[in-house]
Amino acid sequence: MSRRLRVVLSYDGTAYHGFQRQGRGLLTVQDVVFVAIEAVTGSPPQRFAAAGRTDAGVHALGQVIAFDATRSVPTARVVRALNANLPDDVSAVEAREVGRDFHPRYDATAKTYAYTFYGWETGARQALLSRYALFVPFQPDLEVMRHAAGLLAGSHDFSAFQDSGRPVADATRTIFECRLEYGSYSRPPLAGVRAAHLIVRADGFLYHMVRVLAGTLLEVGRGRLSGEDVAGILARRDRRLAGPTLPPHGLCLLKVDYE
Amino acid sequence: MSRRLRVVLSYDGTAYHGFQRQGRGLLTVQDVVFVAIEAVTGSPPQRFAAAGRTDAGVHALGQVIAFDATRSVPTARVVRALNANLPDDVSAVEAREVGRDFHPRYDATAKTYAYTFYGWETGARQALLSRYALFVPFQPDLEVMRHAAGLLAGSHDFSAFQDSGRPVADATRTIFECRLEYGSYSRPPLAGVRAAHLIVRADGFLYHMVRVLAGTLLEVGRGRLSGEDVAGILARRDRRLAGPTLPPHGLCLLKVDYE
Repeated sequence: MSRRLRVVLSYDGTAYHGFQRQGRGLLTVQDVVFVAIEAVTGSPPQRFAAAGRTDAGVHALGQVIAFDATRSVPTARVVRALNANLPDDVSAVEAREVGRDFHPRYDATAKTYAYTFYGWETGARQALLSRYALFVPFQPDLEVMRHAAGLLAGSHDFSAFQDSGRPVADATRTIFECRLEYGSYSRPPLAGVRAAHLIVRADGFLYHMVRVLAGTLLEVGRGRLSGEDVAGILARRDRRLAGPTLPPHGLCLLKVDYE
Repeated sequence: MSRRLRVVLSYDGTAYHGFQRQGRGLLTVQDVVFVAIEAVTGSPPQRFAAAGRTDAGVHALGQVIAFDATRSVPTARVVRALNANLPDDVSAVEAREVGRDFHPRYDATAKTYAYTFYGWETGARQALLSRYALFVPFQPDLEVMRHAAGLLAGSHDFSAFQDSGRPVADATRTIFECRLEYGSYSRPPLAGVRAAHLIVRADGFLYHMVRVLAGTLLEVGRGRLSGEDVAGILARRDRRLAGPTLPPHGLCLLKVDYE
């Protein structure tokens, strides 16, 4: 009798060609997760799905996957068993049995991403952040960025903030929260290092959406765009008007919410 | 006319065989720093010295080095120039000109290290911490550890807490501060993940001292040693009575203090 398991994963995306299986010799997070699941359950996962297809180099603190497992590994032991078969940079954090119909993407009510950037106070790269944050050597105006971030909240057609390559019929998404946090890390090894985080919580995301939003807000922060420009770009739905797609390593899928 | 420069470095020690040059084909942090200094100043650094010889796998947020530079690179540009020539996992954070006699180790009044461990609440590894913290799957008693940590402060002969391999004439060191912090990371990508940190600030450290102290306190935390045992081990100066040397990746040199 097979059960459906929901597992929360965290990973450092640096070494992977994104989450989703690619084939073509490109190692993905899904590949190593499949190997671990097969080692633990005795067969490849059935009806496997993930909440978010994170891109190459993007990290996750709370990616959610689900799959049917045939062998009766006690749910309480799934996390430990998976971790024994996963590389250091991928880990299972939590596992639970869910209903047959659970789908980690379709059932999600919201996902939260963070884009992290730093560097303007010191003008210096920080090696311990280099995997997880974008180095920004100029001083952005965080207050105008914060204001512009607030304009993005709500239900909008975000066509201007998606890259081509993954077309959707309807580009309307609802951003529940779009805010800029700024301050010091309080704990080792980064204690005292300052960074800013764009936190975006929405019911769904378009291709590269957070990276384009962050890139656009950074243009606002350096005075190349105004807050009003951002509202205009949103209204005109033209990708060419928005800012650049920031590199993937600053991005992390923090959390997926369900009912 | 040569000047003496003092530079603060941060690095992720994962890929390196420690700070100090080894030769024998083993890449160290010092090797890549030498390459960068030579690229920037036009010649190998003269009278090079570092505050701490961190071991293989150990990280640094605030390692301090000093060297004589012949070419007149403006001090304000040294950080940027070095960073342009350093790999991602090593960075210069700050540079200033200092007196001819400055020595980063002999002139240091204190160094602060942190040893980070985590894992007992969830029983799960956390991929985003795997480079920087020890996974501890059992629940340690943090209160008794905190008490025992307090007993280590002060001037003592720490012979029981050093490994062989780097003998010293006098094993007396003064620990100014030895405390256990415990709580959640507050910022992405680790927001909400809980960890404990042993913070040790002392006028000097013996070989592997923080890792043996942390290993001994963890034995206290799991009930194999008591706080009184720790006092006894200190008094008896016998390495065999103390706990194991914890692995290097949980350790970070946070800061070096000068007058």
